[in-house]
Amino acid sequence: MAINLIEPESLLPVNGIRLAAISAGIKKNQSDDLVLIELAENSQCAAVFTQNKFCAAPVTVAKKHLQMKPPRYLLINSGNANAGTGKQGMQDALNTCALVARQSGCDIEAVLPFSTGVIGENLPVHKIESALPTLHEQLFDDNWLGAGRGIMTTDTKLKAISRQIEIQGKVITVTGLSKGAGMIQPNMATMLAYIATDVAIDNDLLQQCLISAVNSSFNAITVDSDTSTNDACVLMATGLAGNEVITQENADYQKLSKVIGEVCMYLAQAIIRDAEGATKFVTLQVNSASSVKDARQVAFTVAHSPLVKTALFASDPNWGRILAAVGRAGIDFDINKIQIFLGDICIVSNGGRDAAYTEEQGQKVMNQEEITIRIELHTGEQSACIWTSDLSYDYVKINSEYRS
Amino acid sequence: MAINLIEPESLLPVNGIRLAAISAGIKKNQSDDLVLIELAENSQCAAVFTQNKFCAAPVTVAKKHLQMKPPRYLLINSGNANAGTGKQGMQDALNTCALVARQSGCDIEAVLPFSTGVIGENLPVHKIESALPTLHEQLFDDNWLGAGRGIMTTDTKLKAISRQIEIQGKVITVTGLSKGAGMIQPNMATMLAYIATDVAIDNDLLQQCLISAVNSSFNAITVDSDTSTNDACVLMATGLAGNEVITQENADYQKLSKVIGEVCMYLAQAIIRDAEGATKFVTLQVNSASSVKDARQVAFTVAHSPLVKTALFASDPNWGRILAAVGRAGIDFDINKIQIFLGDICIVSNGGRDAAYTEEQGQKVMNQEEITIRIELHTGEQSACIWTSDLSYDYVKINSEYRS
Repeated sequence: MAINLIEPESLLPVNGIRLAAISAGIKKNQSDDLVLIELAENSQCAAVFTQNKFCAAPVTVAKKHLQMKPPRYLLINSGNANAGTGKQGMQDALNTCALVARQSGCDIEAVLPFSTGVIGENLPVHKIESALPTLHEQLFDDNWLGAGRGIMTTDTKLKAISRQIEIQGKVITVTGLSKGAGMIQPNMATMLAYIATDVAIDNDLLQQCLISAVNSSFNAITVDSDTSTNDACVLMATGLAGNEVITQENADYQKLSKVIGEVCMYLAQAIIRDAEGATKFVTLQVNSASSVKDARQVAFTVAHSPLVKTALFASDPNWGRILAAVGRAGIDFDINKIQIFLGDICIVSNGGRDAAYTEEQGQKVMNQEEITIRIELHTGEQSACIWTSDLSYDYVKINSEYRS
Repeated sequence: MAINLIEPESLLPVNGIRLAAISAGIKKNQSDDLVLIELAENSQCAAVFTQNKFCAAPVTVAKKHLQMKPPRYLLINSGNANAGTGKQGMQDALNTCALVARQSGCDIEAVLPFSTGVIGENLPVHKIESALPTLHEQLFDDNWLGAGRGIMTTDTKLKAISRQIEIQGKVITVTGLSKGAGMIQPNMATMLAYIATDVAIDNDLLQQCLISAVNSSFNAITVDSDTSTNDACVLMATGLAGNEVITQENADYQKLSKVIGEVCMYLAQAIIRDAEGATKFVTLQVNSASSVKDARQVAFTVAHSPLVKTALFASDPNWGRILAAVGRAGIDFDINKIQIFLGDICIVSNGGRDAAYTEEQGQKVMNQEEITIRIELHTGEQSACIWTSDLSYDYVKINSEYRS
């Protein structure tokens, strides 16, 4: 059902990164549910995490470990979020790190844990323990596709991309994965995303590069306004590409930042294209706002409106619902100046339906799988763009049957 | 499908109020869609309206007229919201007032117009004009049930109630109507509600009484977070009960305020019981908060979560989704102190699933039609209570087929 989302047939290895995936029996359906990512020594690592107050135990542990040591291993399980699990959850997350550390001979703080899946059930640590030796043996640099599949939950398609650029005459590879289809309104990072590159770069700049990329990609998508307890986005840089370490915001940094931004955007939009029950890929573009905050507020209000989302599902050009959502967004504007467009068609101007608008024009846009709603507030010069999906029978079906 | 909502078999007339309902052909299905309410001379009238920036033309006109003259007539149509209709919409709303004024010999400013239905289509004023003479002839004081049916749109049940109290030895009657089932998150007033009493009361006190009642009733319900363009709640007092005019916040005022509050609460909850596609009536009680604002924010965040709403629809005690919604509500609390209850069952304490909780206990609560989710924040002494419905296949069905 994913909208114009094609799985990659192959992904480019990143020098210094090895990956493995296995079925440890955490998911009920025997598909891969445990992934190990190994980073070469001296790699840099940046990350952003959920701002949900009830963040999962692995998020708390990963944030702490990241401040203590450069990571050598990322251990990711799907099928169980290890969230809402209290003290036991913290102990379980630490135990899995200790198991990886013992297996590989690194410090426990060099292991970052990640979990995704059902909230509130204890992590089956013994299953992870049994699977670890085989998992460790299967670490290969060309296993990105396997790792991508291993982190999936309600995703129907693998979300991954590789890009290459040249910096200082050296080929730089960037390969990234993401997962997520529901409980999606990123607030900082979202769901799980792992991006690796072999570029050599200073760690502060790497973090800056990630935050900038995430703000306009993962932090600009929403399926259902529900920010997960487990969101994390990690950007790894092994430094093995042979370039001189990037330590300033120079042209090399800009070039890198651009490609990281593009990879994050692809991975974020892929989540919307594969959103639970989605039949439409919807772009909300809010322009001429007095602030980015206002523009985002209008965009998210429209994107979260169940009435707008069900009209999109029905391919119904019920523009009154868009107008009503804009009107309740809580920001100031002149209703006689604001304009709303469905694709290129002006639907609202002068405080009501645009004089030239016809239902046929609106229907033509609504019949498309990819729809842009553009709102011109005419209160300033700022803008924001976000992406969302529609609300279908299948969203209700998937989420009312998730645990059964 | 409405949850424990029984239509009244009769309603008590209010001395000084006459009502009529007719099919003017605005709705496609020939059911009544035009209602006229007549107030005795010297009646007082209080009202609150939607805060949606794109408020409908009749809302703008009604607010203006209310400031100019005591109203004698309320003209209400269903089937067309006269919203998003620009200058033509304003002219149409004014024209309908002029028609009523001419018919009845009152000033145009003594007529308040109200509309509910599809947004963005022009009001068929000629149909209203043709229907007005018959409508006017059919004004009777015992026609509350007919008027209640005439303002319905996607409502499946009539929402109405009568109550009587005694003030200064005089019997005071209060009868009220409401309509609404979708596009429901009141912000000030909501949808349409009309409450009349024959009490004699000062107009400022009447407005104060209404605002107080609305804040804890209509402003505390949500179906889908969508604030309508047409929301209005009107409280009329004809002053014909024979009591001395209430001019102070004395015991009489408290008694009246209490019954008005109860009537508003019944009418507001009736909207949730009849919410589009609803199979559950859900109470969100947030206690021990540092402010009412915080408590309401947590309550509405949980109430709007599509994941919580679909779990409620599925009768799935997926308490992790409640925990995740509380965690993203954007307010400060200690996750180790907060407690969440499903009915009387503690589901979350000490940062995770309560040690004594069992799935069977949760399932038993979730199987009920009326469910209370109680959240103890332990950050202060304020609280808030709101009501909402679940998210079902039928909500999607109703809202994707509304215009077809």
